[in-house]
Amino acid sequence: MTDQIYTGVDVGGTSIKLGICDRQGNLLHTFEGPTGTDGGPQVVLQNIVTYVRQLVDQSAYSWEQVAGIGIGFPGFMDMKNGIVKFAPNLRWENVPVKDVLEQELRKPVKINNDANIAALGEAWAGAGKGVDDLVMLTLGTGVGGGIITGGKIQEGHNGMAGELGHIQIVPDLEAIKCGCGQKGCVETVSSATGIVKMALDALERGEKTMLSMHEDITAKAVLDAAREGDEVARRIVNRAGYYLGRTMSILALVLNPKRFIIGGGVSKAGDILFDPIREAFAQYTPPSSQEGVDIVPAELGNNAGVVGAAGLHIRG
Amino acid sequence: MTDQIYTGVDVGGTSIKLGICDRQGNLLHTFEGPTGTDGGPQVVLQNIVTYVRQLVDQSAYSWEQVAGIGIGFPGFMDMKNGIVKFAPNLRWENVPVKDVLEQELRKPVKINNDANIAALGEAWAGAGKGVDDLVMLTLGTGVGGGIITGGKIQEGHNGMAGELGHIQIVPDLEAIKCGCGQKGCVETVSSATGIVKMALDALERGEKTMLSMHEDITAKAVLDAAREGDEVARRIVNRAGYYLGRTMSILALVLNPKRFIIGGGVSKAGDILFDPIREAFAQYTPPSSQEGVDIVPAELGNNAGVVGAAGLHIRG
Repeated sequence: MTDQIYTGVDVGGTSIKLGICDRQGNLLHTFEGPTGTDGGPQVVLQNIVTYVRQLVDQSAYSWEQVAGIGIGFPGFMDMKNGIVKFAPNLRWENVPVKDVLEQELRKPVKINNDANIAALGEAWAGAGKGVDDLVMLTLGTGVGGGIITGGKIQEGHNGMAGELGHIQIVPDLEAIKCGCGQKGCVETVSSATGIVKMALDALERGEKTMLSMHEDITAKAVLDAAREGDEVARRIVNRAGYYLGRTMSILALVLNPKRFIIGGGVSKAGDILFDPIREAFAQYTPPSSQEGVDIVPAELGNNAGVVGAAGLHIRG
Repeated sequence: MTDQIYTGVDVGGTSIKLGICDRQGNLLHTFEGPTGTDGGPQVVLQNIVTYVRQLVDQSAYSWEQVAGIGIGFPGFMDMKNGIVKFAPNLRWENVPVKDVLEQELRKPVKINNDANIAALGEAWAGAGKGVDDLVMLTLGTGVGGGIITGGKIQEGHNGMAGELGHIQIVPDLEAIKCGCGQKGCVETVSSATGIVKMALDALERGEKTMLSMHEDITAKAVLDAAREGDEVARRIVNRAGYYLGRTMSILALVLNPKRFIIGGGVSKAGDILFDPIREAFAQYTPPSSQEGVDIVPAELGNNAGVVGAAGLHIRG
């Protein structure tokens, strides 16, 4: 085997996921190890070096076949120079990842943020395969966004494009504060955190719901209750879907993507969430901007990041 | 002179503007003639052929130097195939402009919409010179939008990207109906039409304003009255600027442009409009998405379209 391979690295606060992809985005081999966040950037970068070598060693491929290494981090980065500017979960500021790792590994290194590599992964080999213009929204603790235009990640002038979770879509009168300092961001209603918050508020108001039997309310519990017909839970999920759909309506006007991909834990809810999303999108988007646009669930799950990171050298 | 030149054509409902540009976007020679809308597509296309030939004949350049012809139309188009799908002002549907004109003129023809070519013109040779990522908003009868990413027009999957005037930014409770069928589009408050409408509403409510002396209220009259300190006019202009600034705040999150360019008749109002725009943008945009972003007035005025159309063959 002498074909070129690409290694993708998805760095999270607790674990680092790695994978090998071929030129077509097929995931051939994977590896996972603890991040070592507490050790600071030096330890984490050393872990990446060790894991990348182990990943390739354990695989059927040789180090010579590695054409490039792509890495995704949670935070803000200077993609051009390969510097992680700020990563709150890792407690990093201005870490020159590319320089350090290229020195150690002697292979070209590219970095990007976690939401963008997930979008690229889905575009390359998942729910967006064959589609050049798409938007991915990842519903997890927050709402992550990644924009693919002409097959490539849209980064903006200093790497801040696709901060879709902070679009202020909830009207001021009923908006609550977001972690970003603003009010009414779509993340305050359509993320797991937002769904839990709405459930806790309903319980505090003394509303009658099966959620009152739970000790710890999770987004999954709310989504399950909604599926079982609980009125309060259903209203909450409708609200999460409604504002996400309205946000997508704005994105359709601005970007005119062919496809929206919804990923992340919350998206596993299925129709009970996708129905209100599609309804709001259909209602609030001018017909000419809806034409030919579809809304689909993500396909790669937790692997999207690793695949997209590997793809940075081909489509980044 | 044997350098290549590019001809730009900006088709409006009443007149067609034409110009010759060099490779750097310098406007070297211009021409203008009536559109002849009432004659239908055949007459308008014949006029374009005649005008392009006259434009070049009257100039210091030869027909052989013409490397390409770019044309902007008001409406929706299939840029790839050069078809105007729908242009309400011209009453056109599915006109294969590129095929017809390439047959007649024997030169490569590219088409795009009026807001996009204005954005490209400013990016190439106007207020966006040297900037690769920018958004232009044109405040006229409506609010037109054009997005430039990596130096090129962002078209979207079927040519509908950049429909920025229809972002629904006014909360439902105080939103009014837009021509597009939706409610609360930024166009309903930040366009000339929106400004006039708000003034008429204020007069109808019997508010005390110097505008009551005018027979016909124009956007210019409202902007002038605001500059002279008229309270009602000032509130209207503040509202136009506020919602435009909030719309730009969303665009900064999605696209992270380096620069916003505000053009069109209304933008001539100057600081009285730009102040509330900048204030709302500063207040509602997360700091990381404001970093390095500037908001400037357009520079090319009515020539932006012609220059941008000429640029379609170099940067389109």
